[in-house]
Formats: sequence, C-alpha cells, structure tokens
Amino acid sequence: MKNTFGNSMAVTIFGESHGPYIGAVLDGLAPGIDVSEDYIRHNLSLRRPAGKISTARVEADEFQIVSGVFNGKTTGTPLTILIPNSSQHSADYEKAERLARPGHADYTASVKYHGYEDFRGGGHFSGRITAALVAAAAVVIPELKKKGIEIGTHIESCGGIKDRAFDDYKKDIAFLADTAFPVLSENQAVKIREMMEKVAEEGDSVGGVLETVVTGLPAGLGEPWFDSVESILSHALFSIPAIKGVEFGDAFEKVNGKGSEYNDPFRMSGDRVVTTSNNNGGINGGITNGMPVLFKCAVKPTPSIYKVQETIDINSKENRELNIQGRHDPAIIHRARIVVDSVTALVVYDICAQRFGTDFFGGH
Amino acid sequence: MKNTFGNSMAVTIFGESHGPYIGAVLDGLAPGIDVSEDYIRHNLSLRRPAGKISTARVEADEFQIVSGVFNGKTTGTPLTILIPNSSQHSADYEKAERLARPGHADYTASVKYHGYEDFRGGGHFSGRITAALVAAAAVVIPELKKKGIEIGTHIESCGGIKDRAFDDYKKDIAFLADTAFPVLSENQAVKIREMMEKVAEEGDSVGGVLETVVTGLPAGLGEPWFDSVESILSHALFSIPAIKGVEFGDAFEKVNGKGSEYNDPFRMSGDRVVTTSNNNGGINGGITNGMPVLFKCAVKPTPSIYKVQETIDINSKENRELNIQGRHDPAIIHRARIVVDSVTALVVYDICAQRFGTDFFGGH
Amino acid sequence: MKNTFGNSMAVTIFGESHGPYIGAVLDGLAPGIDVSEDYIRHNLSLRRPAGKISTARVEADEFQIVSGVFNGKTTGTPLTILIPNSSQHSADYEKAERLARPGHADYTASVKYHGYEDFRGGGHFSGRITAALVAAAAVVIPELKKKGIEIGTHIESCGGIKDRAFDDYKKDIAFLADTAFPVLSENQAVKIREMMEKVAEEGDSVGGVLETVVTGLPAGLGEPWFDSVESILSHALFSIPAIKGVEFGDAFEKVNGKGSEYNDPFRMSGDRVVTTSNNNGGINGGITNGMPVLFKCAVKPTPSIYKVQETIDINSKENRELNIQGRHDPAIIHRARIVVDSVTALVVYDICAQRFGTDFFGGH
Amino acid sequence: MKNTFGNSMAVTIFGESHGPYIGAVLDGLAPGIDVSEDYIRHNLSLRRPAGKISTARVEADEFQIVSGVFNGKTTGTPLTILIPNSSQHSADYEKAERLARPGHADYTASVKYHGYEDFRGGGHFSGRITAALVAAAAVVIPELKKKGIEIGTHIESCGGIKDRAFDDYKKDIAFLADTAFPVLSENQAVKIREMMEKVAEEGDSVGGVLETVVTGLPAGLGEPWFDSVESILSHALFSIPAIKGVEFGDAFEKVNGKGSEYNDPFRMSGDRVVTTSNNNGGINGGITNGMPVLFKCAVKPTPSIYKVQETIDINSKENRELNIQGRHDPAIIHRARIVVDSVTALVVYDICAQRFGTDFFGGH
Repeated sequence: MKNTFGNSMAVTIFGESHGPYIGAVLDGLAPGIDVSEDYIRHNLSLRRPAGKISTARVEADEFQIVSGVFNGKTTGTPLTILIPNSSQHSADYEKAERLARPGHADYTASVKYHGYEDFRGGGHFSGRITAALVAAAAVVIPELKKKGIEIGTHIESCGGIKDRAFDDYKKDIAFLADTAFPVLSENQAVKIREMMEKVAEEGDSVGGVLETVVTGLPAGLGEPWFDSVESILSHALFSIPAIKGVEFGDAFEKVNGKGSEYNDPFRMSGDRVVTTSNNNGGINGGITNGMPVLFKCAVKPTPSIYKVQETIDINSKENRELNIQGRHDPAIIHRARIVVDSVTALVVYDICAQRFGTDFFGGH
Repeated sequence: MKNTFGNSMAVTIFGESHGPYIGAVLDGLAPGIDVSEDYIRHNLSLRRPAGKISTARVEADEFQIVSGVFNGKTTGTPLTILIPNSSQHSADYEKAERLARPGHADYTASVKYHGYEDFRGGGHFSGRITAALVAAAAVVIPELKKKGIEIGTHIESCGGIKDRAFDDYKKDIAFLADTAFPVLSENQAVKIREMMEKVAEEGDSVGGVLETVVTGLPAGLGEPWFDSVESILSHALFSIPAIKGVEFGDAFEKVNGKGSEYNDPFRMSGDRVVTTSNNNGGINGGITNGMPVLFKCAVKPTPSIYKVQETIDINSKENRELNIQGRHDPAIIHRARIVVDSVTALVVYDICAQRFGTDFFGGH
Repeated sequence: MKNTFGNSMAVTIFGESHGPYIGAVLDGLAPGIDVSEDYIRHNLSLRRPAGKISTARVEADEFQIVSGVFNGKTTGTPLTILIPNSSQHSADYEKAERLARPGHADYTASVKYHGYEDFRGGGHFSGRITAALVAAAAVVIPELKKKGIEIGTHIESCGGIKDRAFDDYKKDIAFLADTAFPVLSENQAVKIREMMEKVAEEGDSVGGVLETVVTGLPAGLGEPWFDSVESILSHALFSIPAIKGVEFGDAFEKVNGKGSEYNDPFRMSGDRVVTTSNNNGGINGGITNGMPVLFKCAVKPTPSIYKVQETIDINSKENRELNIQGRHDPAIIHRARIVVDSVTALVVYDICAQRFGTDFFGGH
Repeated sequence: MKNTFGNSMAVTIFGESHGPYIGAVLDGLAPGIDVSEDYIRHNLSLRRPAGKISTARVEADEFQIVSGVFNGKTTGTPLTILIPNSSQHSADYEKAERLARPGHADYTASVKYHGYEDFRGGGHFSGRITAALVAAAAVVIPELKKKGIEIGTHIESCGGIKDRAFDDYKKDIAFLADTAFPVLSENQAVKIREMMEKVAEEGDSVGGVLETVVTGLPAGLGEPWFDSVESILSHALFSIPAIKGVEFGDAFEKVNGKGSEYNDPFRMSGDRVVTTSNNNGGINGGITNGMPVLFKCAVKPTPSIYKVQETIDINSKENRELNIQGRHDPAIIHRARIVVDSVTALVVYDICAQRFGTDFFGGH
C-alpha cells in the first residue's frame, strides 16, 4: 500500500521536503485515547537536529491536529497531523539539482517518476517525512504504556564505538525516553559524540546500529508465516530511510553457532513462562513468547557528505563530480532512534488491535 | 493477511505437517505462462532432505496442480498446487506432545491457539509448508528468466565456515540452480559438509547466513516508504521459519563505517547508469537502481537437536527436560536456499506486475 | 484481492468447473470452532440442483477438509476444503467452445485472459465455484448462531410472483434453514415452482429477487465510508455470479418518497434502542443500529437457455447463432439463496472479528 | 481499510464537519498528470449547495494541494488536498446535541465510538467529507478522458418524477459536465425543481435514483469473484452517505423477466464486438465487455427534515421529540451526482492501473 501501513490501525504519510506541509493520517485508532500535544512535541524534539553533530536546518516542528481529536481525546475517526515546513532554503539545493547524490534516491526517483518528482531536498524521500511518523506515533505510545507495553532504543554502536548492553530494561527505557542522545553509557556517549564531531570536520558521515527492546508484550501475538512479528516489524522498519538491515536477537552474530547454544530454554518463573536466554528476540515461529522483543537496525552513514563524489548528471547522462554545499547531518543515527521507536509503536498497536479488537485501547 | 502475501499477484499457503495435504494458491498470475512440472519437481528436489546431513523424513514431494493450468499454461485464474504428506510418523512426536521444544513454536502456538493447534510435527509452523512456496515459485521463476531476471542464493557462511563471494553472477547463478548443496567454492563445500556431519554426530545443529543476488531488475521498481523493495522483500523473507535477520548489501558489517566509503558512486557505463560499488544492494530510497539486488538472510541453527534441553510442559506448566528422539536436520541452511530463492521470485514477480501491469508476464 | 476477501478472516477460492477440484481456504478463523461435516453437507445439499427445475448435472458434493481442523475443531490456521468435480461431461460443451454464450463470461474471459482461460463449462467463472463458498461458510454459520447472529434468505419474487414478506424472523429463518426451495408462503412456493417448470419447457430461464435478514447483530459494527456494512456486504454479494443489484431496506422502491416517511424513528423498547420502521435496513451511516440488517439481491435469469441466440465466434470474430444443447438450470435463484447466506456469514464473521478481536469466536 | 480505498491507486479521506480541515490523500497516482485547480474548483462547485433547494451553509470550497504536485503536474508521490471548513455554526447544532437524528449516524456513532465522536454537524459522517472525494477525483477525471474514458450521471428519478433516458452518451455526458442540476430533459428539470421547492416548504425532504454511464472502458477489465467490477464499484459507491441501493443495468426492474430477454446478444459491429442490448450494464462475469458500463444508485431522502420526529436522547436513553432548526437540504440528489461521478472515476483509474500498470496514465 505504498504510503499506508497497517491493518486494524493504519498510518498514511504524505509530503515533500520543500512543500508547504508534511503529515500523517492515523486511521482505526480506538476512540477515547488521550492526546497530549506536549508529548508529541517532546518526541518531535528528540528527532530534531541539534548542535554540531546535526544539520543546521532547524525545524520548529510545529504541528496541527486537524481531524480525529475532540475534547483532547481521539474520536476513533482518522486523526490527521499536519507539520508545516518552515525552513525551505531551496537555493541550497539548486546546484545539485541534476546531479544524482550517491546513496540518495535522486537517480532512482528520476527513473520511477520520469523526472516529474519534486527533487528539492529529496522531496518525498526526505528523512523529514519521518517527523510525521514520530508525531503520529506519539499518539499511541502513551496508550501502549497504559497496557504495560514500553519501547526503548539505543545506539548499539556507531562509528565502531559500542554502547553498553541493555541492563535493566525498565530503567534504561525511562532514561532513553528523555535523552536526545540515546546512549546508555555516559562514557561511550562522550566518545561517540567526539567521534561524530571529528567526522563532521572531515566533511564525512558515519552510521551504526540501533538496538530496540519492546517489553510487556503478551505471548501469543503475531501470526505464522506472512504476518509473523518479524515480517511486520521489518516491513515497517525498512521503510525508514537509511535502514539497511534488521535482525532479531543477535542473529547475524550468532547464527553460525550451535543450536544447543542458540535455542532459548523455557522455564517457569513462578506462574510465568520465561526463557533463560533470548537469542530469538522474544519471538518463536513468528509469535511473541512473552519475553522482551529485541531487534537491531543497521543505519547506514548519512549519504550527504562534504567530500567530492563521483556521480552522473541525471539529465545529460554524463559523468560528473558532486560537491555538496548545504548543511547536513554527519550522523542521523541518534535522530533515527525515535523514528524506530515510533514505527515500532505503530506496529505493536496494530498487532494488538487485530488480536484483541479495536476497543482493546482507548476509552469505553 | 496472515497466510496470503502479494498485491497484484498473491500467494496463499495452507496445511499442517501431518495433515493430508499442504498447498499453495497463486492468484493474479498472468495467463499463458508455461508451467513445467519437471521444473517444479526439480526445485522441490533442491529442498528435499538428503544424506547424512538431513532428516530421515524423505518426502517424495509429489504434487498435483488442481486449478489454474490448462493445456500446460496458466489460465490467469488461481493456480492451486497440492502436495500430499506421504510420510507421517505421528508416533515419533507423541512423547514430545506437551513439552515445548525450545526454539520452536510449540509454546507460542499453544498460547495463540489456546491448545487447539495441530501440534504434530510442528503443524502449520512446520518447515514442511515451505515446499508449497517452492512449488508455487517454480511457476514464476522461468517466466522471470524470460524477462532477464535471475535469482541465486548461496551459503555465505555456515558454522563459521565461509564460502567465496559471488564472482560472475551469471555463472554462479547457473551453477547454483543445479546444485543441491549451494556452496560456490568446492573446497568450502567439502568443509561445510564435514562440519555438518560432525555436528550431527554430536546431536547438535548449526546455522549460518545465506546470500542472494537478483540480477536483471530494471531501475525504478519499488516505492518509497512502506512498499520499499527492502520492506516487501524482508516481509516475505522473515516469513520463512529460521530466518532471524535480513540485510541488504553488507549492512551490519559496514554501517559503522564512513559515508564516503559506503555511498555507491554513480558512473555511466556506455549508456547504462551503474554504481562502482554496491553497498546499498541495488536499492536507493527503496527503489531499484538497476544494479544487482543483494541481500543476506541469517538462518538460525535448526532448533531440533538430540541433546537434552530444559523446557516446560505446556499443559502442567512445570519445568521438564526434553530429549527429542525423532530424526531431524542438523542443518537446514542448504535446504532453506531454494525457499529464499522462491520467496524472492514471488516478490519480484509481484513488484513487476504492479508496476508494468498484469500482462507484463505471460502470453498475449 | 481478486480471489481473496476479508480482513481479520479471509476466504480464498479456486478451481474450474472441469478441473479435478474446486476449493476454499479460510484464513484467520478462531481456534476451537466446532466443525460439523454434516452441517457442511446439509448446506451443500441446499445448493445442489434437484428435480425438473434444475440442471441434470448432479454433483455428489463430496468434500474433504485437508487443513486447519484437528480433533473436530478449527486450529486457527488456514482451513482448506477441497470439493472434487465428480461429473465432468466435457463433450457437452465442446460445440459451444468458441461461441460466446450471451450473459456469460466467455467473451470477457477471452479478452482478459487472451484465450488461455479454461473455457470448459465456464471454467473459473462457473457457478460451481460457489459450492466452495457454501462449504466454507458452513464452518462459521453455527459459530455465529452461538453468538446470537442468524441469517435467512427467501425468494422475495421470481418471474413476477412474490413471496409473502418476512413475518417472525426467528421462525422464518428456522423454516428456511431446512428448506431446499426457500419460499415462505406455501401457496406462492407452488406457483413459483409451476412457473419455473413452464419456463423450463419453453427452453427459457427466469430470475428474481432474494431478500435476506441478519438478526442479532449488535449496534456499532462497521465503519463510516469505505468499510461501511453496505460497502463490505455489497462487495462480497456482487461476487456471486448472476447478482446484478443490491439494496438495503427497500431502497429502489422507496427512495423517491419523503424523508418524513423514510427516516426510521428511534424509540426505547425497555432498555434497548429500536427503530419503529426499518427502511435503512438496520444500518445508519454505514454502521449497524441493532435492528435486523435487511437487504435484497437482484438475481438475473440464468443465462444458459435452450433458445437460439445471436452471438459471435470468439476466434473468427464473426456473427453466429448459438443453440445450447447441454442441460442447464431454468432458474438458479433458489440455489443462489444459500450462496447469499454463506457470503453474508463470511462477511459478518469478519466484521465481528475486526471489532471484537480474533478470540471473539471459538474456544479459549 | 476504513478510510482508504484502492489498490494500485488509493484514496484516504479524513476530517469532520466542524474541524479545521477535511481532506484526501491520493496515493499511487502516475507522475506527470496535469493538475488543473480550475477544474477541481469547477467540480467542487457542482457539489456546492445553491439556491432554495439547498442548505444555506454555503462553503467557498477553497482548497490547497499540499503535496504531490510540482510544476503543475503530479509527482507520483501522495497528493494531498486540504479543504478548510470556513463556515462552522456550531451553535445551530447544540440543541440537537444529544438527540439522535433519525436516518443519521448519531446513534450508531455513539455506540461505535463510545461517545468520543465529534458529533457536531455529523462529524466524520457528514456529507461534507465528500467534497474531499470530489476534489481528489478532479485530478484523475481529465486523465481518464485522455484515455477515452468518460463518466456522466443524471437524476433518473426524484420524488417520483423521471428524467428522460440517456440518449447520445457523448452529448449527454458533455451536457451534464457543466450543469449544476443534472437532469437531461429541460422540462423534467423544471418539474423536479418545483417539486423540491414544494417539499422544502413542507419542511420535508425527498430522494431518488441516479443513473451513471461510463463510456470508453476497454473490454477485459476487472476480475471474476471478489474484484468484479460490480464488487469494486458498489463497495466504493455504498461509501457515499445516503446511497442505499446499487444496481447494474436495470437489475431490479428486469430480473423477474426471462433469460431470452435479459441476455445481451453479441454481434460484430465492424471489427468491434458489441451487444445489441445492455441489460448486464457492460459487465459479464465481473469483467467489462466493452459496452458502456451502466448503473443506478438509490439516494435516500435527506434525513434532516424540519418536521417533528420521534427519537431518543442518546445520553439518558429516553424517548424524546426532535425538532431540527438548522438549515438543511430538502434534497441532495443533485449534489450527490458529482460525488458518484468522482467515486466512479477513482475506481476506474485504479482498475486500469492494476491491469495496465502504473505508467498507463501520466507522462513519460
């Protein structure tokens, strides 16, 4: 469905980097969900670029909810959020107009859309559009929390520097929720920031891996085969620009090992069924087993760099050199974090609503 | 859609390990596609367990096409393939009936289906169901080839032993198409087989990574956001039991590097646009760029092992030990290969039909 | 989705009139639903042609459930029913092979499928395929009844002869459930039968209108706009061959009247909200209001007649005369009844499961 | 999909009668379609209430395209249209706040949404939302015309007064395209208007039947079974508030007749296949046969009337009398016309794009 995702509750996104608005429509929300504009603003702020390690395009991230909320609560009809594009320096981009930026969608968009695409600032491919996903998800995240479901994502590694592993999920999630730079270890956070600043000075960029945990999901969610939790989550996660890999548990690191080590033994913990390891990331046969769902996303280095790059002119189909002049992020992994949280929240909401009905959430 | 996947052309799968039939329905196929029962049989044989390194349950993989084919060609109406389950030793499983096999879906299925699931041999979660996907895809693979689109998958690594990288895609794909043990390097094939046999002797199992290439895809396929090629492919791939990670290019290995190294520079090669590296796996912004599409799947070690494992009794909710007696695969990665090829083919067919129309394939 | 319909619970149908099997896959059923093969057989018998007023092709309507049922109950995984085509007199059809039968899909199928369609007996367009829908729905109808939801359809009119109106829904539905000729008035049943026999003697056919009631649906089901109950029901009903009109309440008869007469006033009946008339057929704004849902389907006269008809030869594209020799139904409206009931049941099940969750039905 | 409809090209609608905006997102449009704001404005004007026979709420129907158009042409990415609600006299509705208006969705919405719905002016159920459909469809209607596909709808009957039948489709469609009161016969137009004014004076309302023709559709579009042209069109048409019946050809009037009269004989007309009658409304077996597609929609009388009506108080669940004071349409059938045209256009565009590919329309 191109720009729409979800079954019982679906999100539709729209907009271009340099158009008047980007936005999202959430359809199928339960009625009676409290909508906090402050919380939406807070989550948008976690996505916003800031400081030396981010692009100078600072968006106020104002937004307006234009449908689906009445007296501060969801109505159950489509909730639409508009985010105006306040800062459009088209001139910055004009020189690059016909040069395909490597790692970006300029060339592929020109083939797909026959040159009719709004190419300014990446158009509809711009990471800017993720602000709409973040705003939309901020409607459902507090509602998930009311049901005991919480989501947290940290930078597992960036530029080769590793964060510490998750320790106490509850504490770590709480810490991450209010931190613009989502690294659990204070020491490593400093190192990663310093590395990013150095990379920025070189006119280069850097990527890394995000690790996410979802706690509180009941066992029995998801489906075998095409609607496995892995399938649905990865579908949504790979929509996020820059994400090039998704694994559950520590898949790529551990699958070359033995089954006797990889299998997660079941044990009773009081009257709860648990596993004593979690290599399967909380999912067996596509279905949640009640353990925390764990996955990692590989976030590629920001393709916009200040270095001279080889490329082609889309129009003349000739070889050229590209020298980007605008201001761009040397790293977006810290900003991508809230996008991963948001996409995850939208998926989790939908999976629960499919299983437990549309009235599982909201007021009655 | 649970057991149905695809838009213009959709596959529906059904069946249980110990029921009379498993099968698949392909809906939306173009009319006039030649259907070769020999080719279906050939691809099923690539999935079939064989020798010391595979389970002793040898299926004849007979099949019957019961709709959608007339005079040897597709009609354009739903094509249904039935595969009888010829070898059902229910007794083998009865002892394990209530013990949740770690790494399997026994426990999660019991929660989801409240104990009504057909638990014999994994029921609907059994890898056996993938035979239906393989048979179904064998209808479209030759048709893709007619359009210049070819797919090949090899064992990139298994039990820590690496195959050589893809070299000449055309030759490598041709080699893999007729090889039951999909390792490109003869030497490494021997090593992996020996390792597998040793693991089998230990009563253990082993996993690894499959690497796939799709050549001949035109640029401009796919969509930004939710129908990105990465999204659709990963959705389908994660449906395959045992796959726990999907990455495009060498994502997890390389994303910690610099943008200047990760970006794939564009160049003209005659009148074709190419990239001089392919870290993005042939996809920019969710859309094919005309380069080979490259991805890897992490295949976890077969969860069925002969060693004693800790687990619970699903019924009594008490701790127990599990000692599986049946005969199982010490590795399924070589057999999973054709499943990955098949799922990929179904996705690629669908993406092309959405873009170019239902008559892009077939006869006129 | 071509041959698949439904969201939380979807049905997929396949098969051709003269192929080995037709069938249906039900995906998304709750686990633990009792499956009665006798009831399936009973409903298939209501669809079966019989006596002077029906085609001589008498199918035994044997069937086999090949997946999704274990110990007599649904497992929650896809339930597949196969119905063998026992009586295939291909020779009957060969003369007509290239002559487009007026009112049938022969010509349109030849355009859509470029001549690759299985044209024998109408192929995939054959009314025969509805047996699969009937068998599939017979799994859910008793489950709906357990939730207090019942469905009944009678011949409102046929060949200009009217049945009496519904009177006591409960009694009328019970009567219809066991009657092969679904006319409420004994007198009118005789008249309609006699008329049909006379039409059969003339080598002609006749159509009419079916009226359906669904009782016991709670208020609040359905959606405004595209998933209105009218939208979903009509979508499914128009899939049935021969249905050319669907109206809720007595729409076409009454919409030319005044709002003051058409509006259904609300009243309290004890603590239940009722309407004192039901012109809206139990649906306001696309959503059930708790009153019986009422709709009518216009069933066109069986297109197969024994009279000489003008037509074309599909191959030579020349004018020709068609003189059908096979044995066909002079009327199918009485047989279409159970198909309408069945399609309605599948829709109602799905709407409930979307709203109340997948565990609303079945066992726990 | 609740508020989203379509496969290759999907429309999503949102908004409430008294919110800041209503709107629509069109996703999957071909790139390079000329977008005429004048034409959008023109079609919105055909929907706008005017004169004595319409509600006094006159909307300027301003609109803003906020995404998906660049340099006057579609980009191929989601096209979003916002329509501000300029005239919100909430006070008019406050008295009726808790009284369920008969024939409206007030009561059903309160059950479905547990009282959280925005009930002002019908909220998301308001006919006002159809303006978004009209604006959206005005993007595709000229593009359909370029492909030779035209759509026209007239009032077949209203308040018992009949318009003349379609005569010369081409001329009639051209006439209707520029007429706010879509009656083909000048005489009958006068009579219907006078009748409407009289009904308005009585404080009552009136409904009728709309008849639509689609010319220029090639043979072979649509699918057997669930994606029959009848299924898809009726699904979309029943989304329009007030539509309670849909029939193809003259179904309800003619199905009680004989097959020998109902069947449409095929003939060659030069090298084109035609039918000499069109009782099947241009559709055989769910698939277009190349003849004009003809259907009728039953439009119920506007439920808002000035007469005292029996109803209930939604909150107290007590019987009450309702005396609506606001200004409402005595008839909306003339305004519903362009909504039917619009919904039809969106469906036809989608069906063509599914069959012929996304590049069938637009620029290259």
